[in-house]
This record gives sequence, C-alpha cells and structure tokens, in this order.
Amino acid sequence: MKGNGMTLTVDELASLVGGERSGDGSAVIRSALPLGAAIPGCVTFLSNKHRADRLAACQATAILVPHGVEAPGKTTISVADPLAAMLRAAERLEPADPPAPVGIHPTADVDATVEIGEGVWIGAFAVIGPHVRIGPRSRIHPHVVVESGCRLGADVEIHSHVLLCRRTEVGDRSVIHAGAVIGRSGFGFRLQEGSFRRVPQLGSVVVGADVEIGSNTTVDRATFGATVIGDGTKIDNLVQIGHNCRIGKHNVLAGHVGVSGSCTTGEYVMLGGKVGVADHVNIGDRTRVGAGTGLDGDLPANGSFMAGIRAMPELQGKKVAVLAASLPDMRREMAQLRRRLEALEAAAGIEPRRAAG
Amino acid sequence: MKGNGMTLTVDELASLVGGERSGDGSAVIRSALPLGAAIPGCVTFLSNKHRADRLAACQATAILVPHGVEAPGKTTISVADPLAAMLRAAERLEPADPPAPVGIHPTADVDATVEIGEGVWIGAFAVIGPHVRIGPRSRIHPHVVVESGCRLGADVEIHSHVLLCRRTEVGDRSVIHAGAVIGRSGFGFRLQEGSFRRVPQLGSVVVGADVEIGSNTTVDRATFGATVIGDGTKIDNLVQIGHNCRIGKHNVLAGHVGVSGSCTTGEYVMLGGKVGVADHVNIGDRTRVGAGTGLDGDLPANGSFMAGIRAMPELQGKKVAVLAASLPDMRREMAQLRRRLEALEAAAGIEPRRAAG
Amino acid sequence: MKGNGMTLTVDELASLVGGERSGDGSAVIRSALPLGAAIPGCVTFLSNKHRADRLAACQATAILVPHGVEAPGKTTISVADPLAAMLRAAERLEPADPPAPVGIHPTADVDATVEIGEGVWIGAFAVIGPHVRIGPRSRIHPHVVVESGCRLGADVEIHSHVLLCRRTEVGDRSVIHAGAVIGRSGFGFRLQEGSFRRVPQLGSVVVGADVEIGSNTTVDRATFGATVIGDGTKIDNLVQIGHNCRIGKHNVLAGHVGVSGSCTTGEYVMLGGKVGVADHVNIGDRTRVGAGTGLDGDLPANGSFMAGIRAMPELQGKKVAVLAASLPDMRREMAQLRRRLEALEAAAGIEPRRAAG
Repeated sequence: MKGNGMTLTVDELASLVGGERSGDGSAVIRSALPLGAAIPGCVTFLSNKHRADRLAACQATAILVPHGVEAPGKTTISVADPLAAMLRAAERLEPADPPAPVGIHPTADVDATVEIGEGVWIGAFAVIGPHVRIGPRSRIHPHVVVESGCRLGADVEIHSHVLLCRRTEVGDRSVIHAGAVIGRSGFGFRLQEGSFRRVPQLGSVVVGADVEIGSNTTVDRATFGATVIGDGTKIDNLVQIGHNCRIGKHNVLAGHVGVSGSCTTGEYVMLGGKVGVADHVNIGDRTRVGAGTGLDGDLPANGSFMAGIRAMPELQGKKVAVLAASLPDMRREMAQLRRRLEALEAAAGIEPRRAAG
Repeated sequence: MKGNGMTLTVDELASLVGGERSGDGSAVIRSALPLGAAIPGCVTFLSNKHRADRLAACQATAILVPHGVEAPGKTTISVADPLAAMLRAAERLEPADPPAPVGIHPTADVDATVEIGEGVWIGAFAVIGPHVRIGPRSRIHPHVVVESGCRLGADVEIHSHVLLCRRTEVGDRSVIHAGAVIGRSGFGFRLQEGSFRRVPQLGSVVVGADVEIGSNTTVDRATFGATVIGDGTKIDNLVQIGHNCRIGKHNVLAGHVGVSGSCTTGEYVMLGGKVGVADHVNIGDRTRVGAGTGLDGDLPANGSFMAGIRAMPELQGKKVAVLAASLPDMRREMAQLRRRLEALEAAAGIEPRRAAG
Repeated sequence: MKGNGMTLTVDELASLVGGERSGDGSAVIRSALPLGAAIPGCVTFLSNKHRADRLAACQATAILVPHGVEAPGKTTISVADPLAAMLRAAERLEPADPPAPVGIHPTADVDATVEIGEGVWIGAFAVIGPHVRIGPRSRIHPHVVVESGCRLGADVEIHSHVLLCRRTEVGDRSVIHAGAVIGRSGFGFRLQEGSFRRVPQLGSVVVGADVEIGSNTTVDRATFGATVIGDGTKIDNLVQIGHNCRIGKHNVLAGHVGVSGSCTTGEYVMLGGKVGVADHVNIGDRTRVGAGTGLDGDLPANGSFMAGIRAMPELQGKKVAVLAASLPDMRREMAQLRRRLEALEAAAGIEPRRAAG
C-alpha cells in the first residue's frame, strides 16, 4: 500500500467520489490508509459518525466523512458512503493486481475426460480428476486438487491448496479460499468389539451459488445424499461443518465456528466466532448467536442468543469460577434462609411479602 | 446422489438386506437419501425408534425401520440394524467411486532411497524424501509431502496436501485426512533478553495403527522422544495436539479440540468439540469431557465432566454475564444476610436450623 | 528417537554439559527421552525442582537435574539449566537431520522476474509469481505458493503448502509453518438488497522479523494498508487473525486463538489457547488473557484477565448451567430477602448491620 505513483489532488478526489470538500483542495494525495495508520499524504475515512472524536489526532491529508460530521482544522470530503468512496480512491491510487491469467498451465494434470468452459484458468500443478466439469470463466489456482466427478459452475474461484473431494458441486460465482477441504469422509464411527469402525460416508457436498468458504475451513460429506451450503452464505476461516448438515441461504458463519453432524439452519442465520453447535440441532431463520456460545438444543426463528462470562481480572475470575461451581450450594442456602425468615415472620406476626420481589 | 441408473424394487431391497416388508413390494427405488431429504423414488431409514413420529410426513418410497416400529400408510422394511441396511442399499444404488489407482505417478518426486511396498499408489506431484519407507497397499494422494526418514505401515492412506515432517511414523491402516500437518516443530519458546527464543524440538510423532486424523488437524513433534497418538484413536478436523502429548488408545477427539503440550490421556477417552486442555494435564481411562469445556487440572478415570452456560436470549445473557462477575459480591451479601438472620433468631429465642438445608 | 548408534558414558555427558555427576560415571547412554517415557539406557531431565518426587520411579540411566535436587539411588548430573543440557545431549545422541538443500528444484515454477538472494532453496513444485523478492538464505519448501509482488527477507523459512497472497511481506528470520494462509481477502461483507456483497480488500499483510506463524493459521489482508504482525511475535497453529489487525511486538498467541477484524495489541501481550477477540478491541502492553476467554471490550496494559467455569462432574455441571441462567432470579430473590429481613429488624428494634459484610 505504498501507492503506485498515481496521485490525486483533494479536489480531484472530491470530484471522483461526488463529495463536498472542506479545506485545502489543492493538497496532493498519494495513498489510501485506514484511520489508525493514516499519515500525511494519504486519504483516510471515517465510517461511523459516532467516532468523530478520533479525527482530532488524524494526520491524513484528507478524510472522507459521512454527511454531518465536522472536523475543525482538517480537510474533509463529505459523502453519503465513506467506505464506498474510500474504495474508489484506493482503486485509483493503489497498484492494480496483475490481470487474471487464462488457460491451462502446462504443468497442470488434467484428465482427458474433463469438460472445461470458455475462459477458464487452471494454474500450475493443479490436479483435475476424471469426469469433472468446470463452468466458463472459473479460476482454479495452483496446487488445487479436484477429484473425480466434481461439477463447478460459472465464475467459480478455487484458491491454492484446496481439495474438492469426489462429486463435490460448487455453484456459480462461489469462492473457496486456500486450504479448504470440501467433501472429506466425515467423522462417523460405531464402537464394535472395543474398536471404532468407520461408517462409510457415501454422500457428497453441494455448495450453492454466491457462497464463500474461508481458508482452511472443512466441510464433510454426507453419509447419504448431500451436506448442503445454501446460496449466498459466507463462511469464514477455520470453520468445521459436519456431515449431513444443511446450512441455509445467506448465513454468515464467523471464524472457528464448529457445526456438528446433521444440523440445519434457516435463512440469514448468523453465528459469531467460535460458536459450537451439537449434532442434530436446528436453528430458525434470521436467528443470531453471539460469539463463543455453545448450542445443544434447537433455537427458534428471529431470536438473538448468547451465553458467556465476561473477561475479568484474574483474581476475581478465579473466585467466580469457584463460586459458579458452588451455585447449587448457594441456591440451597438461599432456600434455607427464606425458610428461616418465614419462621421469624410467623413468630413476629408479620405477613410474608411473597409478591414483593 | 442422483443414483447411477440402477434400480431395486422394494421386495428386491427387502431380500438384499434380509428385512421384512410391509406395504407395496413392487414399487421402484432409484436412490438412497436421509430422512430429512427423502423424496418419492428413494429409500430412507430411521435409526432411532423414539423418532418414529418423524415418519408421518416422509415421502420416501420405502423406509428401513428397526423392528417394532409401525408406520401406518407407509411402505417399510423392518430390520435389526437400519443404518447397516441403508448402507447396503446405497452401495447398490449409488455410483461407485472409481477404482483406486496403483503405481507411482510420473510427476511424483520420489527420492531414490525410498522403500516402497507392493500395491502402493503415489499420486501426482507428491514429494517423498530420502530414506522413507512405505508399506504395502498404502495410498499417497496427490500433493502430499513426506519428509526424510518417515515410516508408513501397510494400508495407510494419506490424503492430499498433508505434510508428514521428518521421521514421522504412521501405523497400519491409519488415515491422515487432507491438509493435516504431522510433526512440525512445536510451540516451545523461552523469553531471553526480551525476545522469545525457540527451544529446538528434536523429537518426532508416532501415530499408531487404525488411527484417523482429520483434515487440517495439526500434531506437533516432541522436544525429545515422541508425541504419540495411540492405536484406534479417531481425531476430527481442525484439532491441535501439542508437543510431547501421549494420547491413549481408542480416544475420540471432536472438531476444534486443542490439547496443549505434555498432556496424557488414557484409553477410550472422549473429548467433545472445542474442548481445550492446558499443558501437563492427565486424563484417566474412559473419561468423557463435554463440548466446550476447558481443563486446567487432571481428571480421574471413568468420569463424565462438563462446564458451561446454556445459550439464552441476548438480554438475559447480558444480565447473567454481569451477575456472574458479581458472584463474589452475592456470596458476601448472602453471608451477611445469614448473620443478620441469626441475630434476629437469637433475639427471638429461636434455635437456628443449621442442619435443615 | 531410537538413537543414532552414538553413545556417551555418564562421565562424558557430565563433561559435555559442564555438570556435576553423582552415581555411576561409566554407565552408557544411547538416547535422550523425556521423564514420562524414560527407559534404561537413556538420559532424561527434570526442569522443575518442585517435581523431584517424580524421580523415584524413573528408570533412566542418568538424570539431568537442577542444582540442589537430591535423588537417592539415582545417577544424576547437576546443572544450572537442565533443559539446555538435555538439548546438548540429544543433539549428540540423536540422528542429525539431513543437511538443508540449496538451489532451485527443477520442478519449481519460478517467474522470470523473481529476484533471488544467495543460498536460497526453492523446493519441488513451489510456485513463485512475478516480481517476488527472496532474501539470502531463505528456504521455500516444496508446494509453497508465493503470489505476485511478495517480499521475503533474509533467512526466512516457508514450510510446505503455505500460500503467501499477493504483496505479502515477511521479515528476516521469520518462519511460516505448513498450511498457513497469509493475506487472503478477509471476511468483509455488506448486506445489500438481501445479499451479502463482498467489500474489496485492497491491502496486504506485513509480517515483521523473527516472527513464527503456526501450521494452518490464517492471517487476512487489510481492507486498506496492512494487517501487521509485529517483530518477535509467536503465533501457534490454527489461529485466525482478521483483516486490519495490528498485532504488536513479542506477542504470544496460543492455538485456536481468533482475533476479529481491526483489533490492536501492544507489546508482550499473551493470549491463551482459544481466546476469542471481538472486532475493534485494543489490548494494552504486557497484558495476559487466560485460555478460553472471550473479549468484547478493550483491556488496559499490564493486566491479567480470564473468564470461565471450571470443569465439573456432568450432573453438577448441568445444575450449574441451569442456575447460571437463573442468576437474575436469584439476585431478585436475594433483594427480597434483604427487604423482609429489614422489616423484621425494624419490628424487633434492631439496627441493620449494613457495613458488617
């Protein structure tokens, strides 16, 4: 992000993003940097008008701000959507990524039976197995392995070191990030005569359209039928989706989420980082679950759920850990105190105020 | 799972699985699908007789049920083990995976000193270092890297993008899933003069027989000697096993489990998803730990342990988080109430009922 | 770790490590093993003098102990730093790793524009994109992919199956372990007309000097500018660092840590295993956070924080989970008890002892 030699004046930038300038319009901008790293010569942006107090110490040459934000002594450009404006500025100022290659790299190992659409790229050392179909303009990065019978739609992007196991389907415009493993034989075992024997996993994984699956995320294939990731769903890095799950459309699953086998989610479900879901749990449409929550039962639609204890100083935290374990004792002691109080009230002729609480 | 063109009548299926048919024996079955995704033309199965209420809405052409389950109006095949019967049906109806290849792919980079047993497969672009030994019928998928001095038993399967670091040993019939990293130099540092210096990790990893290690799981090598994974143990995806651990036989470790350095587990230990274990912890035989539990001390054998707060509506959850942090205050207030109560009881001449709780 | 045929007598070992021998100086040592796995013929070590009770059952031929530790009936070598002495012993007794290769493997795919320093190794099937610079003596293992414009310092080591996305920078002497993904386009989406649209991530990742990044860890690139990992910081396996984070110098982040977008940490911050950090959180210098803690707000410098419930027997754990959810009810009931007690005290003419708690 050291800039690409391109520059813009503040007025040129205001014109580019359709904003209203306040301050020195002739100052020169060479880079686009976030507020926390802003330096003279750069443009930065403020997305949240409630954080306007952060502008006082800002050294950027220009600041893209939402309408209504004042920054005395600063050069600002007021716009409706500062992030969108910042993206336009950065795309102009920063070096463009090299143009996307097209064609099949000579080192790629592509089976003779593979069907390849127009404009496809298959990178170095990629391995494409028998009877795979790859839709037009899809991009298979170096070192990807696509096993037999997989079907990829149009404009799909598969990053380096991904494994798509046999018969995986990926819908149009979906992106699978580096190192993800889609369709391995899931974690199904039965204890027989003292040993765990594998239950064959005969199904596959079906990834919908407009899906993103993060780096090093794993999605296990179904025992029968398919593990499904619904259209438009975005899954972060290092997530585990167990066999037989049916994740709905337009879900957002944050990093380190773990979903055990045979779960379902509705549409627009959001699971925060490190949420863990026990097997066979069903989560309703538009329900949100806070980071770190463990679920062992179904959740209705339209809810917002959490579970957790806040970080606290270590000494207090150790006391709380001990007292939490003694909650059954506290509960019992409180019941005992109530009974003793009732006895005293009776002796004193006072009517207990049960409803007062 | 769209079927392979093979079909079975219900009576043919009943005969195949040795079950007792009730309903239309001539109906034709083309696919095998789970209960939640069953459609006309498929066979499905019910594994848990207590879920028989789920059959009423089922549209499958035939349902494999445990003995004793009634499903009025449905065509059923009653068997002792519905899952086993379903697997037999699916293996007949679904497309078979292509036969396993044998031999060394011409692009694989195999050192001249490697010893290779009969019937071994080494896939495209695999890299096998000096003095590696690979037992008969083992299968090394494309893009695997096996460093110097590794020893693999018979019938081992190593999936794509796995790294076996130098001197890793893998026992007979064990499976390492895609992207796992076995034997990297573990997380050992000492703070010296303000910087963390690496403690050399001179040991290795020994994986027993009949082990499974999940996708993108990491097992670090020992400082001295070996990090050990016992025979028959099954480890899920995205698990971390620290250096110097000795995991016992026939353990089951679910997804995202993290075991710090120098821990030991007995036989038949089960750790639920996201369990975290501090370093130097020892867990006894047959002990089970519920999902999400953090352990910072030893656990005896034959126990069942957990720790956690249930998911609750966000507003309640926020209150609980605050109150949990104030448990030391509540504990203190309760002691104060008890003392005041005792003073009142003394004044009233009432004997405290200490033993009543 | 079966030894390499080299042997040492106890006296030779004592001389090698500059220690004081007690017991049989002529006994022969063939291997170096940890205390828990020690067998006759090996040397082992005790690092913590408070664990001297563990020596009684030890079968090692010699034990390296800290000064002042007595082990009646055992052969010991007393030294100032047993771990350092054990490392010297093991380096002598154990097989040396093969010498590091140098040069570019003929199968590597290295763009013609790459600048390569002296003594660099590029392993089999590595892919190095346009305009990459690699400093002297750096080691690129087999199957690494380095995208366009990356800059690697001197003595850098990149292990197998790592992806460095375009424009990633890695400082001198840093190590990236196998399967890590550095610089993927992070998890930034905006909901527009019912679908999540990707926010372009135009920035990059800058990894400082003397950093270690663990296996299968993911570091996402910034929206603008750079996601930064400070000099000397050590990151364990399976960690996720979100886009725009600025991780300080000499931090230690344990396995499965997840840091959401736009967080900052000071120097010498330590995050225990599975710590989760919400977005935009700032953590001060030298602050430590215990394993499993979730953070949703800033933490000051020099603190030590935790949050959690200890593992307990399952039955007790289930009760605690229920009671924790009912803490608001308990709080209310306790307030009610206090009011009733005050009424009784008033009736009895007793002054409430508010300050007594």
